Amino acid sequence: MLNPKIKIAIAGVGTVGKGLIDLLLKYKNKQTKIEITAIASRRKQEFKGGIFRNTVFFSDAKKLLKFHNYDILVELIGGEKGVSKDIVFNALREKKNVVTANKALVSKFWNQLHSLMEKNNCLLKYEAAVAGGIPIIKVIDEFLLSNKITKIYGILNGTSNYILSNMLSYNKDFKDILSEAQRLGYAESNPKFDIDGTDTAHKLSILSSLAFECYNNVSKIDNEGIENVDLQDLEIADSLGYKIKLLGITELNNKNINNFVYPCLLSKDSFIAKIDGVYNGIVVESNFCKKSCFVGEGAGAHPTATSVLSDIISLSKKRKNCFKQSFKFSYQETSLQSRFGSYYLRFTTYDKPGVISGIANQFKTFNISMKSMLQKETEIGNSKDATIVITTHNCFESNMMKALKKINRLNFIRKKTVYFRIENFK
Amino acid sequence: MLNPKIKIAIAGVGTVGKGLIDLLLKYKNKQTKIEITAIASRRKQEFKGGIFRNTVFFSDAKKLLKFHNYDILVELIGGEKGVSKDIVFNALREKKNVVTANKALVSKFWNQLHSLMEKNNCLLKYEAAVAGGIPIIKVIDEFLLSNKITKIYGILNGTSNYILSNMLSYNKDFKDILSEAQRLGYAESNPKFDIDGTDTAHKLSILSSLAFECYNNVSKIDNEGIENVDLQDLEIADSLGYKIKLLGITELNNKNINNFVYPCLLSKDSFIAKIDGVYNGIVVESNFCKKSCFVGEGAGAHPTATSVLSDIISLSKKRKNCFKQSFKFSYQETSLQSRFGSYYLRFTTYDKPGVISGIANQFKTFNISMKSMLQKETEIGNSKDATIVITTHNCFESNMMKALKKINRLNFIRKKTVYFRIENFK
Repeated sequence: MLNPKIKIAIAGVGTVGKGLIDLLLKYKNKQTKIEITAIASRRKQEFKGGIFRNTVFFSDAKKLLKFHNYDILVELIGGEKGVSKDIVFNALREKKNVVTANKALVSKFWNQLHSLMEKNNCLLKYEAAVAGGIPIIKVIDEFLLSNKITKIYGILNGTSNYILSNMLSYNKDFKDILSEAQRLGYAESNPKFDIDGTDTAHKLSILSSLAFECYNNVSKIDNEGIENVDLQDLEIADSLGYKIKLLGITELNNKNINNFVYPCLLSKDSFIAKIDGVYNGIVVESNFCKKSCFVGEGAGAHPTATSVLSDIISLSKKRKNCFKQSFKFSYQETSLQSRFGSYYLRFTTYDKPGVISGIANQFKTFNISMKSMLQKETEIGNSKDATIVITTHNCFESNMMKALKKINRLNFIRKKTVYFRIENFK
Repeated sequence: MLNPKIKIAIAGVGTVGKGLIDLLLKYKNKQTKIEITAIASRRKQEFKGGIFRNTVFFSDAKKLLKFHNYDILVELIGGEKGVSKDIVFNALREKKNVVTANKALVSKFWNQLHSLMEKNNCLLKYEAAVAGGIPIIKVIDEFLLSNKITKIYGILNGTSNYILSNMLSYNKDFKDILSEAQRLGYAESNPKFDIDGTDTAHKLSILSSLAFECYNNVSKIDNEGIENVDLQDLEIADSLGYKIKLLGITELNNKNINNFVYPCLLSKDSFIAKIDGVYNGIVVESNFCKKSCFVGEGAGAHPTATSVLSDIISLSKKRKNCFKQSFKFSYQETSLQSRFGSYYLRFTTYDKPGVISGIANQFKTFNISMKSMLQKETEIGNSKDATIVITTHNCFESNMMKALKKINRLNFIRKKTVYFRIENFK
């Protein structure tokens, strides 16, 4: 059952727009054929042939107001007023579906957008507006919809998190790290909304409105930013067992909703304190699932474009299947013998000369190199055993197993050697 | 646009089945009306009236083979053979949709189930089969579908994670903690599959098959369990900077897929090492989103039932809207003034007598109680300043702001006092 081709008009080809085009160029789904019927972008783009062969180009997005050959408007211009607002409202009035990454617009006009959708039986989807690489809208709207959500909190702005994490790590002041973040593309040339908490407030307002089914006006959210976080405070907090993070917090409190945005101290052991760098992290508390946590890159072209494309596809296809349609890949399954990695080994031996060299000789034979060694005496009854713990550098499992087989037969070995694999996941 | 009523037949009312019924009793969605047309359960249940008024009860699930009055079969019996297999295959043959939590069945009969769905244009959904409280199937299938996934790894079994975490925390042996886990309901009376890695292998096989669009036969996965993890090794690993976790790992390696299940050492700083107790944690690495991490309760009646219900609803409703249909709640938004919590305060003062008592007096006036205090001298030019850092117990923000206003006017205060809020999130 093939679905018809879906026509999209893309407004804005900045960071996210370019990311979307990257994904569309790579995306091959047999079910859904996405056709780009229009691209509106101020900058002249070099899109030719291939997926652009039927694309109309506009240098002014306003031209989309009179363009009708699309099913989904993909609004990636941003901003709560001007042309982005005009084309989104126009599309919904024309009963078209819209996908947007525009947090300012969605948070400010939540009620109006909702009424229009209701009236015209069309949809606006905005996964990309909150924490690009985390499907938090889907989680709240489709997974937790049978739960009563009581609280959501998290790090919703990657730029601020990058700055706070790196001030402490590199012992540098706010301004130094901000400049560095701008140079690396983690902060805009005008980073005001990222660092003063406005961006976090927009996202929080959307999460709060969705989770509590009640419009939470973004302008009523008190927000404080990180401009005044001093390196000294990060260091003192660290010495007291805390990290400082810019959080958005929304919680139900009887008949009240608390919506807060501020930098605050969190125990280093807390889940959210462990999320550093440009990552976003969100914790959702609900009556049936208790605590669910989500971590991903919050910004950046590709994670955000992944959200946009996920929304486009979910609007375009009759979700026929949660199994994929084709098993196009054929892979060879490998066995543990092929593992290449490092190992933890615990040897129990008699405490006598020659033990280490006996082990080391076998390691040499099988090309295994030691990384660390720890030895301690253990008294069991009258005999003195030695416990030797060795960690290794990477080697093949097949070699390690052969070496262990030989070692376990050596006369100083008291018990079969215990081993565990070491994984170097970050 | 109201959708028609959806009829479900539930097979099996054990832990997850009871959880589902709890949720259905509480679930009020204006769009979707779920009607339970049949319940098959060996134990006599006391379901009367209300949502059960049109329900037929069977003591033998086999009776469902001849029962046709349903749209979705909800199979919660479990096991890869016998009646659970028969009724699932029968339903798909009759072109009905199926929702299941049965990881053994889905992992073993992946290809056959897929062919049958393809042929009969119906669906089997299995979010509850892997990490109950984490929507990982949805993430892979609907969110990351435009990405190329390269690796998935994680803690997929809550029982094992509980045992390993608690052995170390409470300095107890495997057997002691296992008994405790059984008493608390975190481990089955027969916990074989949980602790020997079979359960993890089933789940890994599903994730691997879905992510790599290629059937990964569960019987070919080498799996090692945690039966032989000694308290001694947990302690030595800890002293070396590692934790031991039972992981499932699937990764693409050119034309090979590595599927591994074993307990391994992980740096304490790694994301996955920080997930303790009954929680599951999954990391997905992909080309565009890089690293996405998900944490939630992996088992238990309610998180798993949340997954089951999410699948039922996604099959039953025309996903009209990602905005909710009604704003039925009305909440009062509160301001920061109403916050009740603790604070971090950094005072910069002249280094002279009376400073602490001056601050303490204002605290007393506004009912604020100190938790900790730290004082250090700072030399700035010729004058000696003192930096005093105080953390407080919970108090009202309004009181704290009044106290700070008064304190900032005291003659020993050199600079406006810096404050941050402290959040006690776990």
